Amino acid sequence: MRNEELAELGQQLRVDAVRAAEAAGSGHPTSSMSAADLAAVLLAHHLRYDFDQPDHPGNDRLILSKGHASPLLYALYRAAGVIDEAELLTFRHDGSPLEGHPTPRLPWVDVATGSLGQGLPVGVGMALAGRRLDRVPYRIWVVCGDSEMAEGSVWEAVEHAAYEKLDNLTLIVDVNRLGQRGPTREGWDLDAYAQRLRAFGWHTTEVDGHDVAAIDAAYRLAAATSHKPSAVLARTHKGRGVAEVDDQEGFHGKPLPHPARAIEELGGVRSAHVPVAPPPDTVLTPITPAGRVATPHYRVGDEVATRDAFGAALAALGSVRGDVVALDGEVGDSTRAAAFARAHPERYFEFYIAEQQLVAAAVGLRARGYLPFATTFAAFLTRAHDFIRMAAVSDAGIQLCGSHAGVSIGADGPSQMGLEDLAMLRAVHGSTVLYPCDANQTARLVQHMAHLPGVGYLRTTRGATPVLYGPDEDFPVGGSRVLRSGDRDRVTVVAAGITVHEALKAADTLAGAGIGVRVIDLYSVKPVDAETLQAAADATDCLLTVEDHRPEGGIGDAVAEAFADGRPQPRLVRLAVRTMPGSATPEQQLSHAGIDAGAITAAVRLLVGEAVVR
Amino acid sequence: MRNEELAELGQQLRVDAVRAAEAAGSGHPTSSMSAADLAAVLLAHHLRYDFDQPDHPGNDRLILSKGHASPLLYALYRAAGVIDEAELLTFRHDGSPLEGHPTPRLPWVDVATGSLGQGLPVGVGMALAGRRLDRVPYRIWVVCGDSEMAEGSVWEAVEHAAYEKLDNLTLIVDVNRLGQRGPTREGWDLDAYAQRLRAFGWHTTEVDGHDVAAIDAAYRLAAATSHKPSAVLARTHKGRGVAEVDDQEGFHGKPLPHPARAIEELGGVRSAHVPVAPPPDTVLTPITPAGRVATPHYRVGDEVATRDAFGAALAALGSVRGDVVALDGEVGDSTRAAAFARAHPERYFEFYIAEQQLVAAAVGLRARGYLPFATTFAAFLTRAHDFIRMAAVSDAGIQLCGSHAGVSIGADGPSQMGLEDLAMLRAVHGSTVLYPCDANQTARLVQHMAHLPGVGYLRTTRGATPVLYGPDEDFPVGGSRVLRSGDRDRVTVVAAGITVHEALKAADTLAGAGIGVRVIDLYSVKPVDAETLQAAADATDCLLTVEDHRPEGGIGDAVAEAFADGRPQPRLVRLAVRTMPGSATPEQQLSHAGIDAGAITAAVRLLVGEAVVR
Repeated sequence: MRNEELAELGQQLRVDAVRAAEAAGSGHPTSSMSAADLAAVLLAHHLRYDFDQPDHPGNDRLILSKGHASPLLYALYRAAGVIDEAELLTFRHDGSPLEGHPTPRLPWVDVATGSLGQGLPVGVGMALAGRRLDRVPYRIWVVCGDSEMAEGSVWEAVEHAAYEKLDNLTLIVDVNRLGQRGPTREGWDLDAYAQRLRAFGWHTTEVDGHDVAAIDAAYRLAAATSHKPSAVLARTHKGRGVAEVDDQEGFHGKPLPHPARAIEELGGVRSAHVPVAPPPDTVLTPITPAGRVATPHYRVGDEVATRDAFGAALAALGSVRGDVVALDGEVGDSTRAAAFARAHPERYFEFYIAEQQLVAAAVGLRARGYLPFATTFAAFLTRAHDFIRMAAVSDAGIQLCGSHAGVSIGADGPSQMGLEDLAMLRAVHGSTVLYPCDANQTARLVQHMAHLPGVGYLRTTRGATPVLYGPDEDFPVGGSRVLRSGDRDRVTVVAAGITVHEALKAADTLAGAGIGVRVIDLYSVKPVDAETLQAAADATDCLLTVEDHRPEGGIGDAVAEAFADGRPQPRLVRLAVRTMPGSATPEQQLSHAGIDAGAITAAVRLLVGEAVVR
Repeated sequence: MRNEELAELGQQLRVDAVRAAEAAGSGHPTSSMSAADLAAVLLAHHLRYDFDQPDHPGNDRLILSKGHASPLLYALYRAAGVIDEAELLTFRHDGSPLEGHPTPRLPWVDVATGSLGQGLPVGVGMALAGRRLDRVPYRIWVVCGDSEMAEGSVWEAVEHAAYEKLDNLTLIVDVNRLGQRGPTREGWDLDAYAQRLRAFGWHTTEVDGHDVAAIDAAYRLAAATSHKPSAVLARTHKGRGVAEVDDQEGFHGKPLPHPARAIEELGGVRSAHVPVAPPPDTVLTPITPAGRVATPHYRVGDEVATRDAFGAALAALGSVRGDVVALDGEVGDSTRAAAFARAHPERYFEFYIAEQQLVAAAVGLRARGYLPFATTFAAFLTRAHDFIRMAAVSDAGIQLCGSHAGVSIGADGPSQMGLEDLAMLRAVHGSTVLYPCDANQTARLVQHMAHLPGVGYLRTTRGATPVLYGPDEDFPVGGSRVLRSGDRDRVTVVAAGITVHEALKAADTLAGAGIGVRVIDLYSVKPVDAETLQAAADATDCLLTVEDHRPEGGIGDAVAEAFADGRPQPRLVRLAVRTMPGSATPEQQLSHAGIDAGAITAAVRLLVGEAVVR
């Protein structure tokens, strides 16, 4: 396209953004208008994309990290000819896939955006896929706002992209100098951004973001840069093209005050159709697993940490499926993801201590068709909570494993203890939450995780615990195991993970005292086995949940939810971590928290009316 | 001290770190040894601190961000004469305040560390207190490891500290080149760190971290730097001083293999006592509120958004108490923290879009005696989950407000909807979770938040809702309100926030059909009013919870927990957001999620056996 045509296309995108927001009665036209020329040049000259085949393996990827500028993206789609005017004007209407912020309900959107600072780290995941796995020269284009450059997640990504020399990644920063409530920290000081990016090892170009020729040249330069990621820093005007709002404060996130006049000022409605360059013919070669690791089998009675079994099982899974990849945040020796790294180094991704980038990369790799397992301490997954939440919005089936759960880690103290992770992961839409108590169960659950539709989570324990189950037993998601039961059970103890072992000890003690106790291993915390719990409720007087987690949001709540169908409920009592732990041995920790065998025994005695002084 | 004495002190700290870890059987001596000379010079020559008066307003503050190197900190305390040898050797023992990672159980520790990347952003909060509120020239010294420089939160802090020209803040980076599982990204490339920090506007000095004279000069230079924060980048050896572990991989986080030999190699046990320079005489002048804002009063029946009431009430609180400060993440116009900013600009802190820094600064300001209210969208508080968790470990009474809760925000879509926030905040140890449904209630709850002991959370709604309560009514924490009740109530609807209004509509409809419904406004989600819920359970057949939140971890779980005392339970049914919303109007959203008046009405009819086709 000639420059005049590119400029015209930019105006068309602006007009369409204004129209969409007007039709919706809300939205972000001014934030769309600043980036319109950047988008026009990208679509017309640089993006290689087959809109009829969004899954084409050679397609470039476009991530609109400033997701609030969704009208611009939808205007692009209209220019590309894949949505029409009527669809454009359904923007933000009930049932329309043209949501307020982009989601993969549209086939050309790979990941949901709208929580700022996520596009670049997700793009890093896609670029890693292109470089290290697909080995296809597609390019990842990420369009960011300047405000979101304040998010630490952006700098995690900046560092990682440079470290990995991701020259297939280009960041376009729309520096319109105005955030939601006023000027950004840096205003139009492009050099401030450029210096920082260069200090991390990026190639940068600074341009007038409304000069289509300059933009074109900058993109060309970016694409020609090798061995480092590239950024195009563009000075733009928010609301560009309409004098009433151009570079003015007070017009963030609202339709233009006089849309008809604005459209006229922008030159009226246009309907140019842009022929987007297709990607080159590309054939993806599925990865054939190299390392041969057998599914681990453990002997009943041996002492094995579930984290060890996780690492071994993940390595084994990687030997069967070439699409499995593992990601860790500099704690692979602790989470045991290191076992995967040893077996399949080409599919192992080290993100150092940057948990947001860790989970974002998992989302990006998933969007490129891989099956990512991302691991760190359960406590530190909280760092990535917003990314996990958004993964659910993206409907991305990423698998997470949090190690060092609970007080049972011992002397390291509360900063290292995952005590809120079940609450966090249960509340994620469509998630699956698994918490094994032994090594063979862990191995089987890892296999099941490979088939989960949404976000999956496996919680592992630091210390060794006895193997309870044989290697050939299955543990379906949504199931549970009754480990002790008799005709005269009076209380059911519901446990998972480390507390299963405490519950068994307590049950044996109580059996010796003539008190029958049923013990349920609730390894699937979500979905929960309501049927087995119901049967236990029918057969015993009371359910006692015991968990190495805060009382809120974990196993106690999961069990309670199983009875939230309006039927009569059983008596419920919860043992959980209600104190702030300090340093102590694992045994002391479990005792202090009141979740060890002694506490369970005492609680059961109390519940059956046979309390004794301990 | 002469250089020889400083070097000797460094050896003493190393020996004590080795001894502490040996006594504990765990811990991080090698990570302590790398920073020993940095710590020795700091204690002997630069820190101004009265160990007998940890609350002395003139005290410098030392934050060991690399909290795993706690043996070094405890060795410092021994050198300062505030703990003795016997106490040092209680390290990591049950009941000892010398925990695996430092916590404020020790009077000289202001904030808990151990989750990496938190020390610097918390230090920014303290430095802001010193500069803008206390106006006292104490210095904040933050000791970081090199691995944690990969955390995005560090770069949020780097940017903010430079922006605020915090020349009372010095970052000391212990570049020992070895992370937990191997080399860091940058190794000993001090210049890589220096370039990045300088690009953000910092002053940097690079030193040999085992050359006490060079360290001394670097600290002096840092303290003399004005108008910018300063960093001392120190090249060190992990395990320095003991050949077997010096700069070797494989010795992270474990006692030395041969401690007796190591102590001998380090020159044996020493017991030098360092006279630490006291701070200058300092008198803190409490802030006298300038802006006069009256507590807002609203007329019953008017339509007011709870977020509006929050902003007005916070501004009013700031007029009564000079210690109240407000912090926001570039959305103050949305959260309505802007009302506080207008009334009390000198106590308002803008953190731009950097939620980790936002919450960390609240923790830092709290540690300096202020009462911080930190606000952003409820959805984006998830970004700071790890910081909120650690605030609880620090026992820091920070107050949070999350706006734009739930699907009721309307067309913006799921990325902007707080749907997991109640689960996140309920699971925080010692937290209080409040969710008002009207403006007067909001105002009163904000007043109560000023007296909460731990982390407090207020959830607000975007849209306007009718004022239900008079301006003089009180709403104690832990209470609830029964809004509808009669002698023949068959079901109790438990709601909070936006769903209270839907519940009232449903109750009125059902009353018209002769079905009595009790309605409880559960504005205090944690602690929950078990007594009122119990009474409702006794009086009605069933409790129906209705919440604009995921089914897990929110109001349904809070109500269930109220019955987890082993007594017989009522029938419970939950209405909550079980789908992934798109864009739609607030009314459509509530309807699609099945939490509007129509859904409540239908559910009640079903529960009482009078279901009709809607």
